[in-house]
Amino acid sequence: MSTLQIIPIHNVPEITPGMNVGECLRIGIRATGLDIDRSDIVAVTQKIISKAEGQIVRLDDVSPSAFAILIAEQVRKDPRLIEVILRETRRVVRMRADVVICETHHGFICANAGVDSSNIESGSVTLLPKDPDRSARELAQYLGCGVIVTDTFGRVWRDGLLDAAIGISRVPPLLDLRGKTDTYGNSLQVTVLASADALAAAAGLAMGKTEGTPAALIKGFHWEPAITGDHTISALLRAPERDLFL
Amino acid sequence: MSTLQIIPIHNVPEITPGMNVGECLRIGIRATGLDIDRSDIVAVTQKIISKAEGQIVRLDDVSPSAFAILIAEQVRKDPRLIEVILRETRRVVRMRADVVICETHHGFICANAGVDSSNIESGSVTLLPKDPDRSARELAQYLGCGVIVTDTFGRVWRDGLLDAAIGISRVPPLLDLRGKTDTYGNSLQVTVLASADALAAAAGLAMGKTEGTPAALIKGFHWEPAITGDHTISALLRAPERDLFL
Repeated sequence: MSTLQIIPIHNVPEITPGMNVGECLRIGIRATGLDIDRSDIVAVTQKIISKAEGQIVRLDDVSPSAFAILIAEQVRKDPRLIEVILRETRRVVRMRADVVICETHHGFICANAGVDSSNIESGSVTLLPKDPDRSARELAQYLGCGVIVTDTFGRVWRDGLLDAAIGISRVPPLLDLRGKTDTYGNSLQVTVLASADALAAAAGLAMGKTEGTPAALIKGFHWEPAITGDHTISALLRAPERDLFL
Repeated sequence: MSTLQIIPIHNVPEITPGMNVGECLRIGIRATGLDIDRSDIVAVTQKIISKAEGQIVRLDDVSPSAFAILIAEQVRKDPRLIEVILRETRRVVRMRADVVICETHHGFICANAGVDSSNIESGSVTLLPKDPDRSARELAQYLGCGVIVTDTFGRVWRDGLLDAAIGISRVPPLLDLRGKTDTYGNSLQVTVLASADALAAAAGLAMGKTEGTPAALIKGFHWEPAITGDHTISALLRAPERDLFL
């Protein structure tokens, strides 16, 4: 492993529905004085992809169901917001005042099913991209490098948020060290690193949340481009039968 | 935020009990051709700190209790290993064949209470450092920079392991963006990034698990050195009353 570099991409134009995110990132990359190599990885927040894909809901356009109104009372949130969250939800995992943790239709377990009111006009919310792997694939094709679409998730047991991968293209989700031996000759039986999530977490530091820096360029991570087919984020989602914390 | 660089530190001498980890890291840093600035952060795996601090147990020296033997049957592990794990444990969080998830006396929730048989002579295991914040503080003093002691943890809901911070000195555990506004003027109400964990995760990629590269140098992360007192890892541990997944 050589030096890993995580470089914030500044000056990305403001994204509105229908815009080409790849082109906007290219503008930012050029304006930041960077160039992209095919061994590079662009990490990009889902927020601008959701906006470009029109994954935006105006709360004034939402009529909450009786069920959403009931839940909204329990968690003390806007019933229209809860209605939007429930539409994005396959399963409510936990619920408490101010917190609704959901499994999205994609299989991500996160607060509010990824519905978010930051970095968008007041009164509107963004949804996660419909198929973040597809979004990543389109971007990877356009930019000619690896792509990780990220979102900012809470964790269990630990305070503070961490960016995680929700869509990938060309980038391996996991770095499998099983079968290798450590320097003592012991085999490393359970060491499979979640490399896409580690890269996403690091990129989250470079992106910031307030600076209009919605992406980061990662150089120096050695990965094998997928030759046939592509990786998918599902490799990072634990099967329910192997999860002790559903 | 400028470019974040994560540089593996090679050629760190093999650590044995009683050795000065700071001196060994300095040797590696020099041999790798690097220099340390006080604004840099060294991320170091707990493994070499545990070894230096003599946190090693030979399984042949362990007599398992009747309780440990009972648990060992259930999870199909060596009863002596279970005995060591239970001694490090404040509370067993979940248990299933091949998996024991424990809360350690420090308050970390992780597999096997951090007891690990990799990168150590066969028949011996390492324990976590007794006080990883203190270990980090001593190293930070010696090296004159920030320090994060890391361990490799599994996650809930997601496959793959991620390095996390278990001890810190001078480095802030969290990057608090609350009260700031996004580019739309919305306040970012819940955006507190777990920066120490994000840095640990990235450093884990640079360290690898098999290459004898037990540390990484992080350059370009902007942090405010603690003026009075120091940060502690407890800031990253969620209080039980706020945790929905105990």
